[in-house]
Amino acid sequence: MLTRTRNALSYSRSRRSKFVSELKEFLRFPSVSSQADRKNDIALCAKWLARNLQRLGMERVRIIPLRGNPIVYASWQRAPGRPTVILYGHYDVLPGEPRSEWRTPPFTPTIQNDNLHARGAADDKGQLFSHVKALESYLKTSRTLPVNVKCIFEGEEEIGSPNLASFIARNRKALRADAAVISDTRMLAPDRPAISYAQRGGLRAEIEITGPPHELHSGAFGGAVHNPAVALCEIIAGLHDEQGRITIPGFYDDVRVWSDQERAFMAQSGPSDQDILRDAKVDQGWGEDGYSLYERTTIRPDLGVNGIIAGHTGPGVKSIIPTRALAKVSFRLVPDQDPQRVAQLLRDHIARATPSTVRSAVRTMAPVQPALVNRKHPAVQAAALAYEKGFGAAPVFVRSGGSIPVVNTFQEILGIPTVLMGFGLPDDHIHAPNEKFHLPIFYKAIETSIWYLALASRLRESAHPQAQKSPRPKEQSA
Amino acid sequence: MLTRTRNALSYSRSRRSKFVSELKEFLRFPSVSSQADRKNDIALCAKWLARNLQRLGMERVRIIPLRGNPIVYASWQRAPGRPTVILYGHYDVLPGEPRSEWRTPPFTPTIQNDNLHARGAADDKGQLFSHVKALESYLKTSRTLPVNVKCIFEGEEEIGSPNLASFIARNRKALRADAAVISDTRMLAPDRPAISYAQRGGLRAEIEITGPPHELHSGAFGGAVHNPAVALCEIIAGLHDEQGRITIPGFYDDVRVWSDQERAFMAQSGPSDQDILRDAKVDQGWGEDGYSLYERTTIRPDLGVNGIIAGHTGPGVKSIIPTRALAKVSFRLVPDQDPQRVAQLLRDHIARATPSTVRSAVRTMAPVQPALVNRKHPAVQAAALAYEKGFGAAPVFVRSGGSIPVVNTFQEILGIPTVLMGFGLPDDHIHAPNEKFHLPIFYKAIETSIWYLALASRLRESAHPQAQKSPRPKEQSA
Repeated sequence: MLTRTRNALSYSRSRRSKFVSELKEFLRFPSVSSQADRKNDIALCAKWLARNLQRLGMERVRIIPLRGNPIVYASWQRAPGRPTVILYGHYDVLPGEPRSEWRTPPFTPTIQNDNLHARGAADDKGQLFSHVKALESYLKTSRTLPVNVKCIFEGEEEIGSPNLASFIARNRKALRADAAVISDTRMLAPDRPAISYAQRGGLRAEIEITGPPHELHSGAFGGAVHNPAVALCEIIAGLHDEQGRITIPGFYDDVRVWSDQERAFMAQSGPSDQDILRDAKVDQGWGEDGYSLYERTTIRPDLGVNGIIAGHTGPGVKSIIPTRALAKVSFRLVPDQDPQRVAQLLRDHIARATPSTVRSAVRTMAPVQPALVNRKHPAVQAAALAYEKGFGAAPVFVRSGGSIPVVNTFQEILGIPTVLMGFGLPDDHIHAPNEKFHLPIFYKAIETSIWYLALASRLRESAHPQAQKSPRPKEQSA
Repeated sequence: MLTRTRNALSYSRSRRSKFVSELKEFLRFPSVSSQADRKNDIALCAKWLARNLQRLGMERVRIIPLRGNPIVYASWQRAPGRPTVILYGHYDVLPGEPRSEWRTPPFTPTIQNDNLHARGAADDKGQLFSHVKALESYLKTSRTLPVNVKCIFEGEEEIGSPNLASFIARNRKALRADAAVISDTRMLAPDRPAISYAQRGGLRAEIEITGPPHELHSGAFGGAVHNPAVALCEIIAGLHDEQGRITIPGFYDDVRVWSDQERAFMAQSGPSDQDILRDAKVDQGWGEDGYSLYERTTIRPDLGVNGIIAGHTGPGVKSIIPTRALAKVSFRLVPDQDPQRVAQLLRDHIARATPSTVRSAVRTMAPVQPALVNRKHPAVQAAALAYEKGFGAAPVFVRSGGSIPVVNTFQEILGIPTVLMGFGLPDDHIHAPNEKFHLPIFYKAIETSIWYLALASRLRESAHPQAQKSPRPKEQSA
């Protein structure tokens, strides 16, 4: 096995420029899942990815239609008795807006200073593709993989994976595996790899305030009719108290209180306030009193406004009282909050907080459960070792503030842990203009994935030491 | 003079359908002053109006370029010794957005149920055109007018008339007059004409909150970085207290306290709370405790949000902390508030109210002084009589909540009163989608203007009874 691993590593090193140009092709598709007019780009992108998997030697490559965007599936199952690893990633991306803030066009991948700039470069096409190229490196050199592999590359992650859980539930037998690997999180720095063992859950909501049935002249009626934009601001402002806590009654009831020991581990292993402020490029933190910024973004929930709009926002002025005002808000939730319960608490709260002078409507969507992975699990420990091989540094175990819905799904439906091997950098501008992927990280990520596949071949052994048969014990000592 | 007046009235009645089709031509120009790409439409509209004035017999017709949009000027000064009346109106209009809320295209004038629907139908093209057609009715029947007339039709009223005051100041001698007439206000009902004797002043401002230099992922940073949209909401919400009063320190210092007598007059002559709510089509009033809705919209100041925008507002979702948030706000001011002082108070207040976690910027624009006209003035009383003739009903004297910057300019620079003869109806949807002008009102407005010109010929007589020569005393007895 070690020879094969070395051959794969050697192959991957010699193919770097080809891998980069393939990744650029992949990034050229504006596979934006949140915009209806990108359906065709999604389809073309899925087709491209499937063909790439086919060519490098993966089997049973399929584009599986769902109610929304298709899953690109591929497997290689010619290692009977060996463990099976699911590789999950997503080929859909966020919109490339606002265009004016992009220094290079979001869907014209551009390399500058060893960084590959494009929407999706890091989230998640570049990270996903690192694993694909690791598979290629094995299959093109030895026509075999160290473990069985099932690839699930979905096209709806950025809209909350609405159809993925039911797909996995329907195919729970076909998807049986020992562990899942996802690379859709961040390292702390180029030389500080990280394994995320916790993600926040989430819930999105639109809060709409409606006032007069048509726009009113602010001269004629200003002062006598409640301005819906003002009313919305009052409601949004009322969602936090002076201590930065969310005011929705009952909201904190289910928030888990962590031990001093865990908080000490976090303080020692996680980013400092200064690290987080530097990454965000802001001078000063904000939020809930009594917690570090790392804690505020991981073990404490958040409520923010992703967008707000009312009235006349274009050039020039319009002296009006708008008819309605809309805020798009999102919660980040933590164990043991339930997004469905939070949705109900929000609806109740907004109904109570709405003055009788206007009307309100709340639409909630994209509920995601918070997720936790045991960082002592062998599948996670194998990833730690792979990082040491690939990056020359042991990873730190961190919590993520974001939401990866599938982690919970894998746990609940397949009963397997998910290893979050992040290859993103803090300054990759994920979800922002000028997103990038650092190419030296791309190369190391491929090597780390190559190592992980090798090390994962011992997974079942350590998990079930009695049951495991080792047909090729020698190679497994890699 | 009475004969001429009767001939003019008779002419105007026989030309109604022609007047309407001309008004439709006038409304077809999207002469939107707040949008830079409408410059050419503004120019074409001004040219059309000038040609119309030329054809009906007005003299010295000119399109006078200003730094912004031109003034269409015309005069008729062949009645030496007689009073001179300035007719002011504006041919610029607000944008026709949002198009989706217009039942008919805003710049395709459409008649339905005796209403002429178009942007600018009532504000102010229709009202302005009533006077133009009154001039035509005299000039086409007797080649003379009862008074000297100077028309000032500007193209920048909807953006705060930035160049009008300096134009009037530069031409104070050429514009010498006894009174000005403006029809850009509302009647209380089709059978209840109104003369506005007070307008609120105004001030517009943009409040911008800036946070992180680029959009941040709300998962990674939500809870640790102040969301600029939330911060803006907090600042906007803080601008009013529980009693509906504006919280800016010093804001009410210069607000005039009116006598019980004046408030009693207002209560008796002005619209009731129910009238105002019905016009606004809302169930419930809002605003400053201790004042009627009429008072809140006339003798009390207001601060509202005309528009607000931040982050992702299009379809789909984007999990971001926006970089900035913008509110377009407008004040309505009352005697004796000074918009420049209010601008300073706002800037100081926002600076103090901005938390150290974000930055704020305040841009103020379009300051307008509040204006008052003595309702006992002969020029105003002549208008009251003209209304009785034209509408068969004595007008009520009302205060307007809106702002007409030129009223103050006429008073300050030319030393003349302005008569505000409103022909708009409360449900004309001024500044809103589906603006209209009621055609029976258009016809009566023309006749009222015809009567006003006749009655104004006695102006100087009553204002300066000793100095007035009466070359044609008989005709003046009309």
